[in-house]
Amino acid sequence: MPIRAAGTPAFDIVRLAHVELTVSDLERSRAFYVDALGMVESGRDDAALYLRGLEERSHHSLVLRLGEAPRCARLGYRVRSEDDLDAAHALFAGMELEAAWVERDGQSRTLHVRDPFGVPLAFYVSSERQPRLLQSYGAYRGAAVQRIDHCNCFAARLQATYDFYAGRLGFHTTEYTETEPGPDDDAALWAVWLQRKGNVHDLALTNGRGPRLHHVGLWTRGELDILHACDVLASTGWLGAMERGPGRHGISNAFFLYLRDPDGHRIELFTGDYLTVDPDFEPIRWALDDPRRQTLWGQPAPKSWFEEGTPFEGVNVDEPRLQARPVDMG
Amino acid sequence: MPIRAAGTPAFDIVRLAHVELTVSDLERSRAFYVDALGMVESGRDDAALYLRGLEERSHHSLVLRLGEAPRCARLGYRVRSEDDLDAAHALFAGMELEAAWVERDGQSRTLHVRDPFGVPLAFYVSSERQPRLLQSYGAYRGAAVQRIDHCNCFAARLQATYDFYAGRLGFHTTEYTETEPGPDDDAALWAVWLQRKGNVHDLALTNGRGPRLHHVGLWTRGELDILHACDVLASTGWLGAMERGPGRHGISNAFFLYLRDPDGHRIELFTGDYLTVDPDFEPIRWALDDPRRQTLWGQPAPKSWFEEGTPFEGVNVDEPRLQARPVDMG
Amino acid sequence: MPIRAAGTPAFDIVRLAHVELTVSDLERSRAFYVDALGMVESGRDDAALYLRGLEERSHHSLVLRLGEAPRCARLGYRVRSEDDLDAAHALFAGMELEAAWVERDGQSRTLHVRDPFGVPLAFYVSSERQPRLLQSYGAYRGAAVQRIDHCNCFAARLQATYDFYAGRLGFHTTEYTETEPGPDDDAALWAVWLQRKGNVHDLALTNGRGPRLHHVGLWTRGELDILHACDVLASTGWLGAMERGPGRHGISNAFFLYLRDPDGHRIELFTGDYLTVDPDFEPIRWALDDPRRQTLWGQPAPKSWFEEGTPFEGVNVDEPRLQARPVDMG
Amino acid sequence: MPIRAAGTPAFDIVRLAHVELTVSDLERSRAFYVDALGMVESGRDDAALYLRGLEERSHHSLVLRLGEAPRCARLGYRVRSEDDLDAAHALFAGMELEAAWVERDGQSRTLHVRDPFGVPLAFYVSSERQPRLLQSYGAYRGAAVQRIDHCNCFAARLQATYDFYAGRLGFHTTEYTETEPGPDDDAALWAVWLQRKGNVHDLALTNGRGPRLHHVGLWTRGELDILHACDVLASTGWLGAMERGPGRHGISNAFFLYLRDPDGHRIELFTGDYLTVDPDFEPIRWALDDPRRQTLWGQPAPKSWFEEGTPFEGVNVDEPRLQARPVDMG
Repeated sequence: MPIRAAGTPAFDIVRLAHVELTVSDLERSRAFYVDALGMVESGRDDAALYLRGLEERSHHSLVLRLGEAPRCARLGYRVRSEDDLDAAHALFAGMELEAAWVERDGQSRTLHVRDPFGVPLAFYVSSERQPRLLQSYGAYRGAAVQRIDHCNCFAARLQATYDFYAGRLGFHTTEYTETEPGPDDDAALWAVWLQRKGNVHDLALTNGRGPRLHHVGLWTRGELDILHACDVLASTGWLGAMERGPGRHGISNAFFLYLRDPDGHRIELFTGDYLTVDPDFEPIRWALDDPRRQTLWGQPAPKSWFEEGTPFEGVNVDEPRLQARPVDMG
Repeated sequence: MPIRAAGTPAFDIVRLAHVELTVSDLERSRAFYVDALGMVESGRDDAALYLRGLEERSHHSLVLRLGEAPRCARLGYRVRSEDDLDAAHALFAGMELEAAWVERDGQSRTLHVRDPFGVPLAFYVSSERQPRLLQSYGAYRGAAVQRIDHCNCFAARLQATYDFYAGRLGFHTTEYTETEPGPDDDAALWAVWLQRKGNVHDLALTNGRGPRLHHVGLWTRGELDILHACDVLASTGWLGAMERGPGRHGISNAFFLYLRDPDGHRIELFTGDYLTVDPDFEPIRWALDDPRRQTLWGQPAPKSWFEEGTPFEGVNVDEPRLQARPVDMG
Repeated sequence: MPIRAAGTPAFDIVRLAHVELTVSDLERSRAFYVDALGMVESGRDDAALYLRGLEERSHHSLVLRLGEAPRCARLGYRVRSEDDLDAAHALFAGMELEAAWVERDGQSRTLHVRDPFGVPLAFYVSSERQPRLLQSYGAYRGAAVQRIDHCNCFAARLQATYDFYAGRLGFHTTEYTETEPGPDDDAALWAVWLQRKGNVHDLALTNGRGPRLHHVGLWTRGELDILHACDVLASTGWLGAMERGPGRHGISNAFFLYLRDPDGHRIELFTGDYLTVDPDFEPIRWALDDPRRQTLWGQPAPKSWFEEGTPFEGVNVDEPRLQARPVDMG
Repeated sequence: MPIRAAGTPAFDIVRLAHVELTVSDLERSRAFYVDALGMVESGRDDAALYLRGLEERSHHSLVLRLGEAPRCARLGYRVRSEDDLDAAHALFAGMELEAAWVERDGQSRTLHVRDPFGVPLAFYVSSERQPRLLQSYGAYRGAAVQRIDHCNCFAARLQATYDFYAGRLGFHTTEYTETEPGPDDDAALWAVWLQRKGNVHDLALTNGRGPRLHHVGLWTRGELDILHACDVLASTGWLGAMERGPGRHGISNAFFLYLRDPDGHRIELFTGDYLTVDPDFEPIRWALDDPRRQTLWGQPAPKSWFEEGTPFEGVNVDEPRLQARPVDMG
């Protein structure tokens, strides 16, 4: 049983707050995220575009920065208080991991660190407030993206990555997949969904060549907003961006559509999970060979969906400890 | 039993094709119909605005013409062929009703007539073809109106009006409301739904001060497009335009929202009726005192909805033969 | 240009009214069509199950009859009047095609014929009336199928089949696909959509081994009823029945889900087409190599969808005149 | 400015977990909540019915107990840990408020208290686990209620009630309405929305005769589930249960439908709010005279909605300190 008891977290993470990606053409990225998916532009300069969802009052949940190759530059998390930020610094510095205070546009005092596997993270309490457009219905377009929901990462050392996030950073497990135990093997953790904000996930981890970003999940109001996005994408030149779906995952109960943005970063439009705040919440276990885990219904995922991902800036990608079988990834 | 057998119609009407309304400010009308409801502008000049729905390839289904007072200038119907048009001319001229050949922008050879009650009608076969925007999903806005569906009129002489439209013009009855027979009275026809194109109605007639236009029905893809229109209207300054609904009528099974345009013309956003093409289709009878007839569910209609309507240009409004009781109108 | 001018039809067909399929287990078929898809049982005996949609007042739109092998036993059409029925008899008898008067449960006087390619057809005016359950919302289940919409058939001699249905039976063309003309070849008709009831089709014909039934199209109220059907099918043991979709066709604008029933008959759940009653309606042409024709968006169709179909009872299947290329079928 | 800084809460409340109502006929209540609204029966005995939503794994979120008059017997909250439960006991006992340990079916160790205004509350950590039916889509009926969301109460001493819940129990303010300050008056708090679980509310308080329960909010997946509930209620004998809506509140952005259950308890079917977990979340202020506060759109609420509520068991109802003006309540 690989789901180990969590220790006391050193500080209080509120939620995944933003993801920073490098892109090659800000105009083209804007056409995809703003015109087709309906995100809101909070700001831009020569080097970057700052986007948010319609309900978000934070300055940005997606930062698109010009870069030479498509990379995930950073995953940003909100923490509860400035004291939590100091405790975060103490934890990472105490583990002799990279940890530095930085200034960032639109964010309060910000701590940049790398996790033990090299993934660049940001922690901060608050951000510059933007007008909430939740009730500006005349401005709704495409998928009418409401907010960032989660990120999903390949991890080459899945159990160790899980131990760090669940045990040291206080993430709660909601669902997980494990291999069947064999005569010589214990069951091994294959994929796991972890949350801080009270729904199914802020962070999911999947066994695979890593660390790499598999996708960023963006929340929509319901299934019809995702179907409308399909219609809009297909009729405005973005048909090639649709990689998988629409369909429903058994895990998380998500109704999903996976897209590849102009630089190949994978985006999930996502709706339909559930509340997980109860203290007696018991994680849901899925067997690796249960077909409903990946796809409650929907067409099979293409090979690209299992294999391709975005490397993190400045970190090498390793082969996974557990041997990947494309047929049963997820 | 007031639903009398229809005679052989003199000519073949295809469907309600357009409605022409007078308005006081083309820009303001455009803001309502195009920006908020999502209709498409086919053309305009100093005096008029020509609109169509997203699936329509005809030049216009709604003509808004500058005028001194809010009037319905004309109801336009398509007929099957030029021969039908000639037969229509013969019928109206033979009844010594006004009947004249005219030229109209975007329409083929057009016959203008008045029905026996003074209502100005147009008949024509075809119209100038416009691009179909059905699959231009990036252009969908507001209610994403797909097409014109029907018009609903007050008639002061309801049985006679019904006899003309069903008996002489070949309209088929789909649903009707009649009063209960009393010791001294037969049941009387109170309201009736009539179709040519195969769904519930092209024309509905209701007992009341008339002739007046009660509303123009515009077809949407489903309930959520109407709810999105509510959100858009409420957040872009058109809250006052919402007169009744959303709700569902028992009659026609329509999910509806009634609006008043900037000049007070009533528009129904409408979805959810059914196919009526079968030769053995039997009209559905509703008792006047059946509350589900008017409202399967939804808040009660305001007084204005029962009483107010748009006069037709150049025709006097008479009191109805049957005494109107606001409580049971519809 | 293979879309030839239609002659004057000999009689007036109203719509596709029912399809009769042979099945191996009535209980299992009932579980699929009634429990999972939400159709209504109108009647049954030891040999057959009679089903209809929620809005239908006709006795049946789908007849499932016990049989040794999965076959389409007959396609049934409504005609306008008893005179039309006699004219139909005269036409088929005059062409020395099989034509016989029969008695059938729930149908008025019925004519059974075979078309020139052997397909068994029924014609009749009316059927035994059943309660309409359109407003019995408490009984809605699964896809809440509202009515039969169309059938789609493979034709080995497509141009000749089209000429018969459009030229002799009065079907109107709404959309069609043709091959590109080459140095030695004219453009050839590859697939065509034909209607009588005023939407995109009652009958579609596709080049292929035939005659065979490709699918029966059942109409739903909207996209969410089809997504709910996906959820219900996947969680009640029918995941394997989902062959293709959900997605949207370019042709017809249909939002679709293709299923295989317990005997392998293909069913399309379908919503979202448009009105085609105008006399100046101009058919929409699609090039065979236009990918949006088949799939405006959605995952690629599996090989089975292109190749498999239900033979008609008592008729041989021939190879198509035009060589089938699976990649561009549809 | 009546929104005062919160003190450090004595214990950690997770969410509103259940509401207990007295009813006169368990069968009739079951017909309403299970058959029409789609809740799930977890258990029943001669005296009570235990219900939950489709995603809930807790034993019950609604307890309906036979009683002589319609009362709200208790509001139940989950707390984080057994230590929090002890801290809760210490807080209430220290304030010389009623506080007693009890055993309750399906709940872990339970603390029953009364708040300073007499409202009976329960606190407990966990409950007996039930199967989650979230993916049992074949069992979805009516509104397909997913979970309990919040309760809304009239408070006669609104500022004091707010001070207790925000200041002592740690509830976070998300939105509030206040009166305009006058020459002799400060602005006064009129209504307030308070949360623990991270969306808009677990508890809302409104100035009025109190303490009384205004309504229990039940969460649905989206607008169409609520519209389907309207159709089901209207066609299965529950039309009279529909008190207000559907419509959308400005406050909370909720799409709503208000129902009165067979004993007159008010239920809100509810969807469409937003995430509130950020530490820099700033409550949204509404002016009492802003019409969009109550109704972004929708028909006006009836008088009953402003005035009627369910008394709590064993507590007197007082007149509000602020004079109620029905026109601007909410």
